Amino acid sequence: MSSSERVWNARQKNREQRLARATAALGSQLQGKIAPADQLGELLYAVLENGDRVCVEGNNQKQADFLAKGLAALDPARVNGLHMLFSVLALPEHLDVFEKGIADRLDFSFSGPQAGRLAKLASAGKLNIGAIHTYLELFGRYFVDLTPRVALVAAQAADRHGNLYTGPNTEDTPAIAEATAFSSGIVIAQVNEIVDELPRVDIPADWVSFAIKAPTPHYIEPLFTRDPAQISEIQVLMAMMAIKGIYAEYGVQRLNHGIGFDTAAIELILPTYAESLGLRGKICKHWALNPHPALIPAIEAGFVESVHSFGSELGMEDYIRARPDVFFVGPDGSMRSNRAFSQTAGHYGCDMFIGSTLQIDLQGNSSTATLGRIAGFGGAPNMGADARGRRHASEAWLKAGQQARAGRNTIPRGQKLVVQTVETFREHMQPAFVEKLDAWQLGEQAKMPIPPVMIYGDDVTHILTEEGIANLLLCRTEEEREQAIRGVAGYTAVGMGRDKRMVENLRDRGIIRRAEDLGIDKRMATRDLLAAKNMKDLVRASGGLYNPPKRFRNW
Amino acid sequence: MSSSERVWNARQKNREQRLARATAALGSQLQGKIAPADQLGELLYAVLENGDRVCVEGNNQKQADFLAKGLAALDPARVNGLHMLFSVLALPEHLDVFEKGIADRLDFSFSGPQAGRLAKLASAGKLNIGAIHTYLELFGRYFVDLTPRVALVAAQAADRHGNLYTGPNTEDTPAIAEATAFSSGIVIAQVNEIVDELPRVDIPADWVSFAIKAPTPHYIEPLFTRDPAQISEIQVLMAMMAIKGIYAEYGVQRLNHGIGFDTAAIELILPTYAESLGLRGKICKHWALNPHPALIPAIEAGFVESVHSFGSELGMEDYIRARPDVFFVGPDGSMRSNRAFSQTAGHYGCDMFIGSTLQIDLQGNSSTATLGRIAGFGGAPNMGADARGRRHASEAWLKAGQQARAGRNTIPRGQKLVVQTVETFREHMQPAFVEKLDAWQLGEQAKMPIPPVMIYGDDVTHILTEEGIANLLLCRTEEEREQAIRGVAGYTAVGMGRDKRMVENLRDRGIIRRAEDLGIDKRMATRDLLAAKNMKDLVRASGGLYNPPKRFRNW
Repeated sequence: MSSSERVWNARQKNREQRLARATAALGSQLQGKIAPADQLGELLYAVLENGDRVCVEGNNQKQADFLAKGLAALDPARVNGLHMLFSVLALPEHLDVFEKGIADRLDFSFSGPQAGRLAKLASAGKLNIGAIHTYLELFGRYFVDLTPRVALVAAQAADRHGNLYTGPNTEDTPAIAEATAFSSGIVIAQVNEIVDELPRVDIPADWVSFAIKAPTPHYIEPLFTRDPAQISEIQVLMAMMAIKGIYAEYGVQRLNHGIGFDTAAIELILPTYAESLGLRGKICKHWALNPHPALIPAIEAGFVESVHSFGSELGMEDYIRARPDVFFVGPDGSMRSNRAFSQTAGHYGCDMFIGSTLQIDLQGNSSTATLGRIAGFGGAPNMGADARGRRHASEAWLKAGQQARAGRNTIPRGQKLVVQTVETFREHMQPAFVEKLDAWQLGEQAKMPIPPVMIYGDDVTHILTEEGIANLLLCRTEEEREQAIRGVAGYTAVGMGRDKRMVENLRDRGIIRRAEDLGIDKRMATRDLLAAKNMKDLVRASGGLYNPPKRFRNW
Repeated sequence: MSSSERVWNARQKNREQRLARATAALGSQLQGKIAPADQLGELLYAVLENGDRVCVEGNNQKQADFLAKGLAALDPARVNGLHMLFSVLALPEHLDVFEKGIADRLDFSFSGPQAGRLAKLASAGKLNIGAIHTYLELFGRYFVDLTPRVALVAAQAADRHGNLYTGPNTEDTPAIAEATAFSSGIVIAQVNEIVDELPRVDIPADWVSFAIKAPTPHYIEPLFTRDPAQISEIQVLMAMMAIKGIYAEYGVQRLNHGIGFDTAAIELILPTYAESLGLRGKICKHWALNPHPALIPAIEAGFVESVHSFGSELGMEDYIRARPDVFFVGPDGSMRSNRAFSQTAGHYGCDMFIGSTLQIDLQGNSSTATLGRIAGFGGAPNMGADARGRRHASEAWLKAGQQARAGRNTIPRGQKLVVQTVETFREHMQPAFVEKLDAWQLGEQAKMPIPPVMIYGDDVTHILTEEGIANLLLCRTEEEREQAIRGVAGYTAVGMGRDKRMVENLRDRGIIRRAEDLGIDKRMATRDLLAAKNMKDLVRASGGLYNPPKRFRNW
């Protein structure tokens, strides 16, 4: 085909056709860009074409649930072959489209509650998984080879022009909408209300094709709320070791915490234990973090200077509004979260990532993938990886780099601290340390090209268990590394398989450090150290501003 | 200080004070958010405070030059101690603020034309450099510990509400404006025109404090234009080796090219040489790239499916508008670039980065830092680093990972292709290969904590010179790696120092490949292979749509 015959604006023309079909289908029910909720099916039939790449906004918190339901209700005889894109595949409807035959391809990042059903559908041949991504990677591909043709997003409100206000749960909407709108795609937003004037504009109307007021407000999951009442004394001990043996040791000022009780315990003993060590102003000043309720006491105690958030957290709205020096808020007073920028901050602007996992092998590779579940890893691979493009120095980064390279003939370089914190046995007495990750078998079952590892061993710098801290930066051979891991693996088979003399040698060299080596009195490790011991304490610490979701109210 | 006494909205209150001072100073000359150009000095005195962190938008292309000049014209007795943030420190005024004593701290990414003067000012104690960053890293820190208090940005147009239209040069504006606006900072935009209705909204008015129509349109640098007339036959030969020995070998479909004649040569022989090898549709389909004019013939020949851009390129506006299937354009037809997303795409969505450098050492570390110049590295560290958080597979990524790990006891993992392409001698017969990088001495001179390396040796997978390709992935020892580098270093001292037997052994093993090993007939390596031999050819290839800046018009 000669260049002169080639069509260069096929997407634009196709977009016009889709819009024209929508206008024809909805007629006078379409008021500008505002479509009525009961016409969602007609609208989707009008704008969708078979084989479309469709991004449904499913986030850690906010869900475009009305649109997801509408999509799943379509007739597969009329729409099929869709290629679905999700940050978080969280709702049953996200999988119904595959079961019904409306969609057959999937690329995503995380699938927590749907992981088991996803694995079943995959093995039944109902869908073809392109890949599991970390969030920022998926956003990057939206601008390269996974650009959505149609995006279904969620916002708090729209005005009559189609401008969107997301409120605190901006999350993934900017990345999805930009990639779709600027490739001549279609962006449909479900909103909780349509108003004359928005508190602020998060997504300009130019980027939005249609807005629909959903019958019920979009669903929000309070994913980052941990009730302090459930924190154990083992977790308090591990939190003490983390603070004294890692945070203070490296002077960690900029960080991200994973989800979980282990890290909630650390947040909750900052105002008590870390304060007693004189660490206020020296550690934990800048965070890339959702607004964890467990962080309230540390904020109130003056530990925290800033928090930039991936998404918001239900119940934290008023507290955030009253703490604008700490959180990123708009002129309207509500937060602007942004997963793309917060993941960028986590990757390049933080010195430490600490999170938990389900399994760690003898090389330090870790994974939450277990048999029969295709869960994905969300942000962990991005934040739990050394940012090799990073060029700015900090005390923590330089010290980690020096430890890793001491005595080696390499050019000096810093390194990110990546800490995996696990109790040696998880629930049902499953060992956290294994000879071989389940990920190998899962990868074979699901025909993945390589096993799904969450964090690679060569990126992990420390493993923290109730038995102590293994500093992998200081290990000089594969064998030392293996013994350092065995040396904190407790009574698991991996731990029992340790070479005792070598482990004692590693301890003498400070590669393994027990609580007593750190000068930590284990008797102090009680729940008394928690600055809030239950949800009510968190509410109190917030001066009544924190308003926990019902399921967390046990008083 | 007890929690009840603490002020939590100091930034908001301070912002209100600044805005009130601006209103008082400008009076009725301020119409809403629109300020007159001749009042810029008064406006800056009103909104700035000593010690402020101030981000001046300086990009690869677009410059907020009017605002930069206004800032440099202030009286240091009234405003001083500023901490300056720049993506690209490009204009004399960017440094005048330090010379005059208005500012004394600097964090930045790139300083091409000002690198020599910057080094002089730094050694004269006129400024304290925090760090040199890669772009995405600097954006990340804007949300962590380098949040701007005041941002001075540039756009094509504003409406009377303060909404901004950036046109194709959106570049860094969204990242800067979001970080500043949502931390209660002040955003001032210079615009080329103020209009009643914008072609589209790139930055919502909520995020903008003031807009000023500058007396002259903001400066744009055509940084990515390379005249094909200046491409040498050596560069054609190297381009042939790149395509046959790397692009085809790995099936590279998603990539970024650095700036330079080496990569322009590759772009220009896609429609000729790569076509003759049957590679159309098999390589180079998706790009994270500014709209390089040298890519026009490959686009016209059907090699290129998509290009997402960091910024635009002067003269490419009409061509882009006529090729919306390839570029990301808005409903108005002009491009939306976005450096943050394109760097994310380059990091996580691309399988290969290929670029040039000034010096490479025996471990493969490379740097463009030379004595007396503090230049920075822009996007290269981000794109020229293995993305260790990446989890999706591709043919190229898997093959690179397999080559690196074959025979090693590690869990399977892919790897990014990072190619350094250099002629063994650069201009003035300076060798590109050195025993020790100048970066060491520069780092000491400028008191940097570690030497400023652009791309670390352990991230480099291939080195390409006129003598051949060294595949570092296949090297198994430090010594092999060193000899592989010496083996393509030609007649430089490093090249002459090779162990000839070992180099021949590496060649037998395919670690070093010469043109003849690749089946490339060197006699074919002439300028006849270039799909465009000069600027006029590029204009012709574009069907007259490309409109080169005057300085490139030699007909």
